[in-house]
Amino acid sequence: MRAVDIIAKKRDGHELSPSELKFMVESFSKDELPDYQMAAFLMAVFFQSMSAAELAPWADAMLNSGEIIDLSQISGYKVDKHSTGGVGDKISLILAPLAVAIGLKVPMISGRGLGHTGGTLDKLESIPGFNVNLSVEDFKRMVDEVGMSLIGQTAEVAPADKRLYALRDVTATVECIPLIASSIMSKKLAEGINGLVLDVKVGTGAFMKNLENARLLAQTMIDIGTRMNCDVTALITDMNQPLGHMIGNALEVHESIETLRGEGPKDIVDLSVELVWEMAKLAHGADAPSRESIHDTLQSGAALEHFAKTIEWQGGDRRVCDDLSLLPQAAKTMVFEAPATGFLTGTNAQEIGLAATELGAGRNTKEDTIDPAVGLKLHKKLGDRVEKGEPLVTLYVNPSSKVDACTARLEGAFEFGESAVAPKLLLDRLGA
Amino acid sequence: MRAVDIIAKKRDGHELSPSELKFMVESFSKDELPDYQMAAFLMAVFFQSMSAAELAPWADAMLNSGEIIDLSQISGYKVDKHSTGGVGDKISLILAPLAVAIGLKVPMISGRGLGHTGGTLDKLESIPGFNVNLSVEDFKRMVDEVGMSLIGQTAEVAPADKRLYALRDVTATVECIPLIASSIMSKKLAEGINGLVLDVKVGTGAFMKNLENARLLAQTMIDIGTRMNCDVTALITDMNQPLGHMIGNALEVHESIETLRGEGPKDIVDLSVELVWEMAKLAHGADAPSRESIHDTLQSGAALEHFAKTIEWQGGDRRVCDDLSLLPQAAKTMVFEAPATGFLTGTNAQEIGLAATELGAGRNTKEDTIDPAVGLKLHKKLGDRVEKGEPLVTLYVNPSSKVDACTARLEGAFEFGESAVAPKLLLDRLGA
Repeated sequence: MRAVDIIAKKRDGHELSPSELKFMVESFSKDELPDYQMAAFLMAVFFQSMSAAELAPWADAMLNSGEIIDLSQISGYKVDKHSTGGVGDKISLILAPLAVAIGLKVPMISGRGLGHTGGTLDKLESIPGFNVNLSVEDFKRMVDEVGMSLIGQTAEVAPADKRLYALRDVTATVECIPLIASSIMSKKLAEGINGLVLDVKVGTGAFMKNLENARLLAQTMIDIGTRMNCDVTALITDMNQPLGHMIGNALEVHESIETLRGEGPKDIVDLSVELVWEMAKLAHGADAPSRESIHDTLQSGAALEHFAKTIEWQGGDRRVCDDLSLLPQAAKTMVFEAPATGFLTGTNAQEIGLAATELGAGRNTKEDTIDPAVGLKLHKKLGDRVEKGEPLVTLYVNPSSKVDACTARLEGAFEFGESAVAPKLLLDRLGA
Repeated sequence: MRAVDIIAKKRDGHELSPSELKFMVESFSKDELPDYQMAAFLMAVFFQSMSAAELAPWADAMLNSGEIIDLSQISGYKVDKHSTGGVGDKISLILAPLAVAIGLKVPMISGRGLGHTGGTLDKLESIPGFNVNLSVEDFKRMVDEVGMSLIGQTAEVAPADKRLYALRDVTATVECIPLIASSIMSKKLAEGINGLVLDVKVGTGAFMKNLENARLLAQTMIDIGTRMNCDVTALITDMNQPLGHMIGNALEVHESIETLRGEGPKDIVDLSVELVWEMAKLAHGADAPSRESIHDTLQSGAALEHFAKTIEWQGGDRRVCDDLSLLPQAAKTMVFEAPATGFLTGTNAQEIGLAATELGAGRNTKEDTIDPAVGLKLHKKLGDRVEKGEPLVTLYVNPSSKVDACTARLEGAFEFGESAVAPKLLLDRLGA
């Protein structure tokens, strides 16, 4: 088997066999396939795509390039959620303890933020002492005893995908649905889960800018999961405005804890409940608790204790759940005033995310460090009435924040109109 | 300027600027652009192509990555021919001295054979003592004093193209018309020529399997030449059967010398005359000598002396022109008999080329050595009447020749029918 022949076969639009796909991943993992051949192959995949029949062995080979966590000895239904990334998306911090509160197990391996999107690990690390780098043994013990654990990708999980992603990043092959789908699925399936709920974002703050591509990505991931014995459901949700009001790491933990206290903004509450309901249906089918009962569980504050216990087990200061002032605080706040009067009819969520990055809340490159305390609070959501000059955004600022660059981005990020729009959060649902 | 952005721009089908193209070639030349980024770029070019406006700066940057031979101090019109490669194609050995015989200057840099196609350098080296590795100074002196020189590509000519070709070879990006065209043109323009005649082959023994692609390749090369101040004409010629009767290095020199004596087979004579006539028209326009007068010059034997002088200057034994037995001789000959009676209606020139390679006349990989003495003589051409059992091919064989593999290929290489076909050699002409 020669790599150049496999590249040519893909280039010419023929379907590759499982053994050919396995050969590519395995020889790449073993450093026998040079980066330049993989780069040419990835670009050929960009143009010719991969079928469901190709993607399952491809993702499987990626999965088997590293450790697969075995949770089979742990009782209960193990389920995770994956979001394709957005602005203000702190849902994992609410959803995981809420799922535990209704009896599910959540072994969650998350990532870091890059560009305009935040990452769950960065948010968790704003909690004083919180350690996202657990051993696999500790992770398993937590899933068994706490019901959940929130860690980062270990070097052992799908290392081929990690190297492949680094190569895609410099060869303009990131924006490729089959490669995105297989990358996500190979990492998620390494968690040893029974089921997975996908939150595929679409809109100005999402990687998928239109519904068609979002559906295609969702269906591609569902197909991979189905062929690899994992139950998968996908929600397509709106990312034309940030989720909730807070953007920035400690600020989003703050908003998450408020939500777990039963005081969350409507969109955060609704999406968290909807996703946990999907998890429950994967676990229990028709016997799943109703959406309303899950909503009641969240509003009762019952999930907060699971989050507090998780913080404690992972070395963090659980008192933040009672005293939000223990979270990192920015040196000062500044107000960005509404430039016009009218209804808020449009927001560029990506620009808002980048505005927060200018303050230090995110990374432009993987090497950047982030400031946990800084960020933005949006006072208005799409459809709200705004008076010129009233506070539109509060900036949480530290001395190294680039305030001018932040406000320059905010200036172009909002549209105002004469009549109210009614944004829809849940756009579609795919899966069994 | 970032390579990844340029790759993405090409991937998305946008036209690159001259400075972007120059950046890619120059940073690749300087080892600042890693092979994996160039590999992804090449595959993007495979799918999105390059426009004439892109190819000129691309080829120019490749050309300027190395030495450009300056022949401006040498009087006369400097013109070369390039063939895209075929089987039995020894035209360069006849055309160059014939062009000199009508007063043109031919600074010719040639390549080696690979796969089913032969290479001019390998053929020349079958002449005892012939040295294809001259210094640029000696090359220039020969063009001035002999009127021609036949050498191989020096390390100094278009080194970026040389590296790029090696990368294309292992990334399935060889079969890409804009990359083929720019590779050829960057090397040819480094010769310091005023004009170039292209012989673009189409058929079973050619890289271009259909007329449409052959025309596109020819036009692409003409466009590059035009934008870089070189006159270019292209002939599209048939390669559904080998040229002439002989395939193999010394055997093709043998047939070339016979042709220069005025005893050549019709197709070799016709194509040599046609190509030299095109050269003459580039040099002299309407004042060019007629096709008939060039034909007469060839048949008179006048060009042979120029070939003999070239052999002598390049260290070879010029007596081969008088005594063909001084060329390397195979140990024995074997006859491959016609398997059927009828008219020869089809030949697979590629299989015949590979049959000669099995005997040792060609290379499967660049590292293989060739045997100058071995090869094939075809007794019949398309349209000829054949009786079952009569000699169809003579094999010139040495002990290391793989005779069985050769005859196995020959068995599938000929088709016979009830009525004669009349093959056409010259299929089209493009250019001014």
